[in-house]
Amino acid sequence: MREIFEAELQQVGDDLTEMSRLVDSAISRAGTALLTADLQLAQSVIADDRAIDQLERDLDERCVLLLAQQQPVATDLRVVVSALRMSATLERMGDLARHIAQVARGRFPRHAIDPSVEATFASMHDAATRVARRTTTLLQTRDLTVAANIERDDDLLDQLHQDTFAALLTDSWTGDAQATIDVTLVGRYYERFGDHGVSVARRVVYLVTGDFAEDRGTPAVSA
Amino acid sequence: MREIFEAELQQVGDDLTEMSRLVDSAISRAGTALLTADLQLAQSVIADDRAIDQLERDLDERCVLLLAQQQPVATDLRVVVSALRMSATLERMGDLARHIAQVARGRFPRHAIDPSVEATFASMHDAATRVARRTTTLLQTRDLTVAANIERDDDLLDQLHQDTFAALLTDSWTGDAQATIDVTLVGRYYERFGDHGVSVARRVVYLVTGDFAEDRGTPAVSA
Repeated sequence: MREIFEAELQQVGDDLTEMSRLVDSAISRAGTALLTADLQLAQSVIADDRAIDQLERDLDERCVLLLAQQQPVATDLRVVVSALRMSATLERMGDLARHIAQVARGRFPRHAIDPSVEATFASMHDAATRVARRTTTLLQTRDLTVAANIERDDDLLDQLHQDTFAALLTDSWTGDAQATIDVTLVGRYYERFGDHGVSVARRVVYLVTGDFAEDRGTPAVSA
Repeated sequence: MREIFEAELQQVGDDLTEMSRLVDSAISRAGTALLTADLQLAQSVIADDRAIDQLERDLDERCVLLLAQQQPVATDLRVVVSALRMSATLERMGDLARHIAQVARGRFPRHAIDPSVEATFASMHDAATRVARRTTTLLQTRDLTVAANIERDDDLLDQLHQDTFAALLTDSWTGDAQATIDVTLVGRYYERFGDHGVSVARRVVYLVTGDFAEDRGTPAVSA
């Protein structure tokens, strides 16, 4: 009985890691599609989001079956409940990558991001890609230094997000309403990506240490 | 044993309804604060969001204990797992109300919403308030006609969201970058509010009928 349980729990962990890998690929390609106005790449991200959604449904069903058949308690129970939560978070990260790709597709053949803020969005793309990669690593290794690095990249994303507002509010901003909308929405998507990464990181920290950091919530959007 | 279980399950249901009631109040006050530039009301929404967050944590802990001590199966298990999911969704709805209040507070004493789109946002406020009220009713009664009405208001919120983009992209839009940012973000918050309401509605429908409608995901933000 215990062996079956261990195998099923392992499968839940593997599914989470696989979801995270797909999200990692999606956010990486979405950012490239956005910054290079690559229609094909954008379309691939949009199409591939279904695989992430399906994996979430499979994983959730697996968790419910595991709860019903194995009736885990204590730490094992918390692992399964956390997996249910983390799969929902990873699914949302996939959605955000899809939204970024949809903006890239909607503006093609033009670039969605105004040249004056391209460097900021390139930095957001780098930070978000690191968050995704580290989330995968964290799920595989439960190495808590990785969790700390995710928190740092989230802080960076918050700062870059504020930078995008600052750029929009200077006199030198010459973008039209569409450009302002795109910078506002895509900036928001990247910022949320960091929040979700932190949410996964804190759940893993909790599973390892039993200590759940108070959720800081989403930072105020003050601009 | 069964009696204890029934009582605890009832408490989970009561907690969810209470969360939904607090969210209902938050979204109603946030919208009024936004549309009337009421600083005090905005601040009350921001302060009260902590109670929603705390209720989520309490409810989640209750669900985990219930799983550990009562080891429910079949429908009972799905009710508990759904409660875990729905509490996360309601917490996010509370966050969105807080974000709207933060925009109102950030622009005070000015109105955040440009007069040219005020009617559209008043309609979004009405639809979002109905979604919140109906979510509370649905959690109490499990009346599926209420779920269908939530779907309809979500469709309306999507349409109104597109209307806000259309307004921003006409030649007659004279708002500055800050006004464009505010309309873009607040419109997005309202649109998400409908998605979350539908998410809760579908989980309740699933619990009642065993039939889970395919998640439509977040509509494309195409403007």
